[in-house]
Amino acid sequence: MQRRNFLQATLTLAGVALASRAGRTAPNLAKKTLKLRFRPYTLQLKHAFTLATSSRSTTPVMLTEVEYDGIVGYGEASMPPYLGESHQTVGDFLTRVDLSQFSDPFQLEDILTYVDGVAPGNPAAKAAVDIALHDLVGRLLGKPLHAIWGYDAAKTPLTSFTIGIDTPEVVRQKTREASAFRILKLKLGRGTDKEIVEAVRSVSKVPFGVDVNQGWKDRSQALDSIYWLQEQGCVMIEQPMDKANLDDLAWLTEKSPLPIVGDEGVQRLPDVRKAMGVYSGINVKLMKCTGLREAHKMLNTARALGMKTMIGCMTETSCAISAASQLATIVEWADLDGALLISNDVFRGMTVVDGRVTLSATPGIGVTPI
Amino acid sequence: MQRRNFLQATLTLAGVALASRAGRTAPNLAKKTLKLRFRPYTLQLKHAFTLATSSRSTTPVMLTEVEYDGIVGYGEASMPPYLGESHQTVGDFLTRVDLSQFSDPFQLEDILTYVDGVAPGNPAAKAAVDIALHDLVGRLLGKPLHAIWGYDAAKTPLTSFTIGIDTPEVVRQKTREASAFRILKLKLGRGTDKEIVEAVRSVSKVPFGVDVNQGWKDRSQALDSIYWLQEQGCVMIEQPMDKANLDDLAWLTEKSPLPIVGDEGVQRLPDVRKAMGVYSGINVKLMKCTGLREAHKMLNTARALGMKTMIGCMTETSCAISAASQLATIVEWADLDGALLISNDVFRGMTVVDGRVTLSATPGIGVTPI
Repeated sequence: MQRRNFLQATLTLAGVALASRAGRTAPNLAKKTLKLRFRPYTLQLKHAFTLATSSRSTTPVMLTEVEYDGIVGYGEASMPPYLGESHQTVGDFLTRVDLSQFSDPFQLEDILTYVDGVAPGNPAAKAAVDIALHDLVGRLLGKPLHAIWGYDAAKTPLTSFTIGIDTPEVVRQKTREASAFRILKLKLGRGTDKEIVEAVRSVSKVPFGVDVNQGWKDRSQALDSIYWLQEQGCVMIEQPMDKANLDDLAWLTEKSPLPIVGDEGVQRLPDVRKAMGVYSGINVKLMKCTGLREAHKMLNTARALGMKTMIGCMTETSCAISAASQLATIVEWADLDGALLISNDVFRGMTVVDGRVTLSATPGIGVTPI
Repeated sequence: MQRRNFLQATLTLAGVALASRAGRTAPNLAKKTLKLRFRPYTLQLKHAFTLATSSRSTTPVMLTEVEYDGIVGYGEASMPPYLGESHQTVGDFLTRVDLSQFSDPFQLEDILTYVDGVAPGNPAAKAAVDIALHDLVGRLLGKPLHAIWGYDAAKTPLTSFTIGIDTPEVVRQKTREASAFRILKLKLGRGTDKEIVEAVRSVSKVPFGVDVNQGWKDRSQALDSIYWLQEQGCVMIEQPMDKANLDDLAWLTEKSPLPIVGDEGVQRLPDVRKAMGVYSGINVKLMKCTGLREAHKMLNTARALGMKTMIGCMTETSCAISAASQLATIVEWADLDGALLISNDVFRGMTVVDGRVTLSATPGIGVTPI
């Protein structure tokens, strides 16, 4: 209690918060424990980013570090405003996380169960701890996580590049700039779907997925749109209708010639079971699901249930993107362009080579701070 | 082709088969590859082992080794005769497995997908490769698998000790010998259920599960038996009826006051999805499901689907038992007594302390050859 007050009084979101009590109340200096640090950062977007319901030019993130025995693992929370987390909420949550009670970083199940129980919600804040812990464990083992998990770095998929909703002229410009990508993801759902697709098609022939962000309201019109999109070279449809509208989504999934992937409707592990019959696939994002450990379980569960899998992202630095890319070999579709959309990245890590997710051979999540 | 013929001509099941072609057709000595060796062994059972449909006093096993860069991982296939594998079939299968094509032991997904595709069936033979590879990877990382997977060795469950079908006198004797265990597993299903349970209860008060091995034929009688067993301190029912009788199993699962766990009815990962609604839990065994990688996926999938989980075994040395015990922290029930039933173990590994699965801190699956 005293410690909590001390930390809350001395913490500042502009600085670095040391959440360990080593040296204060734990005089046993021989016992190594985990130390959590975090600091807020603001990503500058290269282009204003438009969804069905909002538009913005920055994204707040929280950069985290977990240190053990002199080794540091890096993590990140990304907080696009429409998801409800912020510098303030993530800082408040992380202040309550006491990792100094743990002396073995390998006990991820226990540690992350504890973190998840600190407060409900806060998935991005939880992911920031999860990613840093995974990076730390990989560094302690001297291996990248994809190797520790038994995956072949050569088998990564292409990543899509996202084209936000905008005027045909800007869409054409963005599509031209994305000419290095071999698959695109088009944001639709604001009544300008055909104009956007036609603008893209006027300058590019690559396949594309679409993300409707719950924007379509009528299932029959949605099905008509899907048939038209298929003719244009579309390969998948993400969250076509309201996530609460399970009947229409199930109807659409049954009738659709293209896979229907749940995004807003599939947040955490228990949602995978509920997605059966509603969607034909799931889009897993670290910031929705509390991090790599739960993401890995979600993807393997979906595969075991015969569902298609996708891994996505928010606008994030190469830290969280490189973490997500460790799971890229077990998905049909990767949408890991988040770090490419920002102008002030602070990590080197995963790269996109010839449109493909290309993993770093560095231990852990494979990142180096810039 | 030439190599296959060479190996098949020179292999002898009584000796050690070196399945690598290093030095024969691959003169690039700088490239490290995987080498698979195997040799047959016969386990001597302390007591003849009686199931609903058979009785025996030995179990054939195949001991395997996978070597990479001078490090050796150990594995094992156990072949109780009623499952259809034998020294001959496992030897034939392993002779066809060419691990020398792989130069990175960490690519478990690729290697085990290849092994699974060498021939259909042969789950124990496949497990023998999977276990040795996992042991190798753990040794290369210098950590036990349970730590690499993020599990806390302190959170292992009790293991049950199995009492086979026999006369009340022998059942009493076996139960007395099992007094160190805090949970028992009783084999039932041959029409002598009450005598067996009463014999156990005359000398022991510990809780027990029962394994009916598909022995019950009428669902209403089965439900009556379950209510009676619950009064006697029974905590779960394994495979009460024919695995093909899905309707009766689903009916029983719905009505039963005790969890109904599928064993013969749940072999591999795709069976977990099919088990929903038919069973309330699954019993995963490495020798049914091709090894640790698939077992881990099955257990996590079952948990994500809200099902109960159990890990079981055949009569096995401490090699395969120690491998299975790496997953013991994510199950409700462990039945890992296989190595305790034999008189000629060839490994030290997992131990049972005060009735509890107790993991070795040794890297990999935690075994040392005796």
